[in-house]
Amino acid sequence: MALIVQKYGGSSLESAERIRAVAERIVATKKAGNDVVVVCSAMGDTTDELLDLAQQVNPVPPAREMDMLLTAGERISNALVAMAIESFGAKAQSFTGSQAGVLTTERHGNARIIDVTPGRIRDALDEGNICIVAGFQGVNKTTRDVTTLGRGGSDTTAVALAAALDADVCEIYSDVDGVYTADPRIVPDAQKLEKLSFEEMLELAASGSKILVLRSVEYARAFNVPLRVRSSYSNDTGTLVSGSMEDIPVEEAVLSGVATDKSEAKVTLNGVKDAPGEAAKIFRALADAELNIDMVVQNVSSVVDGTTDITFTVPRADGPRAVELLEKLRDGAEGTAVLYDDQIGKVSLVGAGMKSHPGVTAEFAEALRDANINIEMITTSEIRITAVVREKDLDDATRAIHAKFQLGGDEAATVYAGTGR
Amino acid sequence: MALIVQKYGGSSLESAERIRAVAERIVATKKAGNDVVVVCSAMGDTTDELLDLAQQVNPVPPAREMDMLLTAGERISNALVAMAIESFGAKAQSFTGSQAGVLTTERHGNARIIDVTPGRIRDALDEGNICIVAGFQGVNKTTRDVTTLGRGGSDTTAVALAAALDADVCEIYSDVDGVYTADPRIVPDAQKLEKLSFEEMLELAASGSKILVLRSVEYARAFNVPLRVRSSYSNDTGTLVSGSMEDIPVEEAVLSGVATDKSEAKVTLNGVKDAPGEAAKIFRALADAELNIDMVVQNVSSVVDGTTDITFTVPRADGPRAVELLEKLRDGAEGTAVLYDDQIGKVSLVGAGMKSHPGVTAEFAEALRDANINIEMITTSEIRITAVVREKDLDDATRAIHAKFQLGGDEAATVYAGTGR
Repeated sequence: MALIVQKYGGSSLESAERIRAVAERIVATKKAGNDVVVVCSAMGDTTDELLDLAQQVNPVPPAREMDMLLTAGERISNALVAMAIESFGAKAQSFTGSQAGVLTTERHGNARIIDVTPGRIRDALDEGNICIVAGFQGVNKTTRDVTTLGRGGSDTTAVALAAALDADVCEIYSDVDGVYTADPRIVPDAQKLEKLSFEEMLELAASGSKILVLRSVEYARAFNVPLRVRSSYSNDTGTLVSGSMEDIPVEEAVLSGVATDKSEAKVTLNGVKDAPGEAAKIFRALADAELNIDMVVQNVSSVVDGTTDITFTVPRADGPRAVELLEKLRDGAEGTAVLYDDQIGKVSLVGAGMKSHPGVTAEFAEALRDANINIEMITTSEIRITAVVREKDLDDATRAIHAKFQLGGDEAATVYAGTGR
Repeated sequence: MALIVQKYGGSSLESAERIRAVAERIVATKKAGNDVVVVCSAMGDTTDELLDLAQQVNPVPPAREMDMLLTAGERISNALVAMAIESFGAKAQSFTGSQAGVLTTERHGNARIIDVTPGRIRDALDEGNICIVAGFQGVNKTTRDVTTLGRGGSDTTAVALAAALDADVCEIYSDVDGVYTADPRIVPDAQKLEKLSFEEMLELAASGSKILVLRSVEYARAFNVPLRVRSSYSNDTGTLVSGSMEDIPVEEAVLSGVATDKSEAKVTLNGVKDAPGEAAKIFRALADAELNIDMVVQNVSSVVDGTTDITFTVPRADGPRAVELLEKLRDGAEGTAVLYDDQIGKVSLVGAGMKSHPGVTAEFAEALRDANINIEMITTSEIRITAVVREKDLDDATRAIHAKFQLGGDEAATVYAGTGR
């Protein structure tokens, strides 16, 4: 008998009808002879409605109370899914994050899971129940207050439970039927991938793919929990994310796909003294302000005045704070300037095949040249190449790279929408 | 410094605007130098909306999951009230029933409070917080499952917390500004009462007054917690319910008011053998079926055939079950019959003054006679007289009795609507 953890996003639970459809799928999995643990997000728009109410009573709502408020959403969807399951003739019990033993740090709104002690879940499974666990929430080990896990928290709950219960697979259901070689809204012949390694999925998630949240993939890799990305609207087997890139035979290593990201802005500091400690000072200031920077590039310094330029990208929402911080640092010094540009896009090619495939960077650059697109920054990792281009050129760049590396299929892909938290 | 427990019903919390108004009142109570614990019901229609969703996914929803679902409503209103309080510059923390130490029996949907261990509440008060506790819910001591307390559960939570914390008063807020001598929608000159004893309030609640749930008054009397019934829409001091009837000096004992009830039906079993054990057999059968019967009347038996008639009232919703049960019991015996009548109303006069006021029953009957209203049944307790009349005559009967005992004031009362759970 296998133990399967299934996670359903808000778009899969947006109505009573959808909840019944999901329940039917869960019961079928149970009747096929498996133990089943289900993690549910809040229904459709519930979270937005609660956020809106909070704004109305307090424009700066306290984080502890925000967590108390938002966790009601998962409680509702979980209880409803449990009820629907019972109407299909199986036994179900729902559990809050706290009841399921999801212990977290204290940080309200963005807590981290410290430990999962699923004793009650194990007991309920042994009694023949399907267990429904509220995603996105846990309990602070120290103060016993309710916490939430931040964006993608329900995925993380599912993976953490799968790890703690030593599940055979963690299935992540949304309205998308797998991981594609590119966003099908941009690239019509994008193909669904059958399988990819944790490292490849991590690079795709870090490069803008929204299908799985980075944190949940990191967790799955750390505990070696196979993930299956599936749609709750179809019976497609989806995409399996498992195993290390190291274990893929060289001849089978391929390029996985092209990821795009329009959420970042580019910040440049001109005229930085080319002396030890200058860059450290800048990055320490940004880190202390909890700004997540990405794609750092420093050019060789000018032979004329011994200064250099440092450029990095940040989430657009953090752009103004980054600029303010750097302006304070340069303190009006002559020959220095802070430049800000949020009209950029990032395009990344990811795949384990890159290692055994010399010349990928050259072909990548040629694809953009042939499409008449200028590269503003470029960085690489072992299995990824990322370029910053003008935002208006991003879709063309994606199509050019996808075509150059022959990632497309024969048929047009199903277009998908966004996923839940 | 006083410790005040305040309970707000759903109608006081139906919108963000109302939540802010309630928060302002709470903060004013705190700033006046009191420790404050607040118990909130779910916002306006939340509970009905959740019940509706449950019906859609499972027409016979399991009770455990129903409790998990419904308790989300109080969680939402509590967190919002805490947020609103912080926006007025006071410190607040919200707690679930479980966090507040509300321990209950196992019976989902209608659990009883076994114990309240408010250690966390006490600590939070000591740190200067206003504590917001989710009403209507607790945690089953044995299985650690979430339970709900049934109708009026939030009132009971408030009273139980007030008892456990040894509070000075428990204020029950709704959209009604106190206990009236009669329903002002029926009797325009009904007066608000300043004060009444627990026993009088119990009799009123048992006789159809909806303002406080019987169980919460019983709890308040058992632990001697003074209750104040107030409106969240006004600054009226409301009605104080406290002290025993025994402590009221005879010369101050008065008649409290007239209560009405249209929720019951009358059941009569004709031709019952007048022999020991016959009545017991009937009432045991009704009790085993968990039918709450009221106003039992048995006439002297007929000298002709040695049989008697037994009549009682039951909630109309239980009427068909009661009839079915009695039909089974009589088993077609000759000379017996079951009669059912749901076109009745109950009118009750309540007050400690009755004890020192001879002839009340006579005046009560005369008032109905003068209004040309027939009495179908009559029962009395030490401080209450109740008559069953035709439902169509109930309002006239109420006005006649109210006038006969001069309970009216000089002004017309403010008309009120229903109260929350």
